[in-house]
Amino acid sequence: MTITVIPVRIDGDIRSSDDLCSMIIRSLETNGVSLENGDILVVAQKAVSKAEGRIVDLAKIKPSRKAAKLGKKLRKDPRIVELIINEAKEIVIVKNGIIITETKHGFICANSGVDQSNLSQADSAVLLPVNPDASARKLRDCITKRRNKDIAVVITDTFGRPFREGQTNVAVGVSGIKPIKNYIGREDMFGKKLRVTEIAVVDEIASAAELVMGKSEGVPLALVRGYTYDRCKKASSKQLVRPKKTDLFRSSRR
Amino acid sequence: MTITVIPVRIDGDIRSSDDLCSMIIRSLETNGVSLENGDILVVAQKAVSKAEGRIVDLAKIKPSRKAAKLGKKLRKDPRIVELIINEAKEIVIVKNGIIITETKHGFICANSGVDQSNLSQADSAVLLPVNPDASARKLRDCITKRRNKDIAVVITDTFGRPFREGQTNVAVGVSGIKPIKNYIGREDMFGKKLRVTEIAVVDEIASAAELVMGKSEGVPLALVRGYTYDRCKKASSKQLVRPKKTDLFRSSRR
Repeated sequence: MTITVIPVRIDGDIRSSDDLCSMIIRSLETNGVSLENGDILVVAQKAVSKAEGRIVDLAKIKPSRKAAKLGKKLRKDPRIVELIINEAKEIVIVKNGIIITETKHGFICANSGVDQSNLSQADSAVLLPVNPDASARKLRDCITKRRNKDIAVVITDTFGRPFREGQTNVAVGVSGIKPIKNYIGREDMFGKKLRVTEIAVVDEIASAAELVMGKSEGVPLALVRGYTYDRCKKASSKQLVRPKKTDLFRSSRR
Repeated sequence: MTITVIPVRIDGDIRSSDDLCSMIIRSLETNGVSLENGDILVVAQKAVSKAEGRIVDLAKIKPSRKAAKLGKKLRKDPRIVELIINEAKEIVIVKNGIIITETKHGFICANSGVDQSNLSQADSAVLLPVNPDASARKLRDCITKRRNKDIAVVITDTFGRPFREGQTNVAVGVSGIKPIKNYIGREDMFGKKLRVTEIAVVDEIASAAELVMGKSEGVPLALVRGYTYDRCKKASSKQLVRPKKTDLFRSSRR
């Protein structure tokens, strides 16, 4: 079945007092998009973080000694380093001027996801949502209720990855969709069992959405339509996080 | 702009004597799809490998002592291990029964991309194309010539990744499309310079295509339509390969 990926522009900036659910519903209408059952709404992390007040005024941040030291070494604003450390469960590696951390959610990414782009306030930074799955659930519940459509919600951010150049969008929060499609035990077209194959479909959906969202054009939403996904009440982005113990590239480094 | 991702079924198996270009053109017609300028044709690696005769009869493989030893340790067919070693530039890590290698192309993946699923021949395995960029270029040249349409071609495979569960599709061969979109120096919606942002758009295109291709349904082709990409005559999947020296998770392990 053909999939369509529809960009949805939001006019104006999102502020911490904004009702994101209402803004999204209004933006869908402004963009001439009617929700359908089975649609997947993809929302940029930054839109969610802004609405949830996860913007930090850097003037109010007093860097710790550790942050000051690391900031000096990496030529990074020590207040940003302070936020990166605060948002991290663990610093995974510091090298080539880059800080890779494990965030409190369990994601391995640069700078704990702390970012300074696309913010209307000067001298500020934005943090990942505290609980992106809860954010996704809240949006889904609200939209489902107000539009009476059965949809899924995926919150996405742009992460780098080892071994390959360039970043891609991945899912950091999900609701209503099973994050991983499991082919284990299924047969291929010649009746042979498939090798172990688990596809991170929500990451692929996030990547597909990035193609229409871009980075600088005020399109923090996309609708993915036509993909038949497995409904899941207990969906969580935690299912995408590989435990440290079984991760070949973390456990091997001890 | 809205993007559409159209699945294209190929009827029957692909054999090493087959003219893949003709098969693709015929399949597009059978599936009622007319090529348009700017379309991106995504082709599963296995289809290309089959047409290029990269199927190996395992009965003819005599495992080396190294392969026999490693096969025994990992409870893997030593003949498959022999192929994995042959296809590798370097074994990156062997752990938890998994062999991660750097292929001769420079890709870091499990088993050097050697696979046994979706093969009509019993007791056989399929290898990655020798030069997937050349394969993509050949297909693009042939289709462009015969249909007079300016398209891009992306050859894709399914790779795992560190830190995150599940696999996603990535590009292993490209032609006519710049693999990475560079936002460096561009401004965000508030006129502020974006942080370093390079998006691996061909990997995102490969992921979007996977959503319609699936794993067991005989859909080795997809057409991605509506995405405005940067044309590139010298496109290569090599641009997606991070050099060992600058890879945080390889260089740090020495």
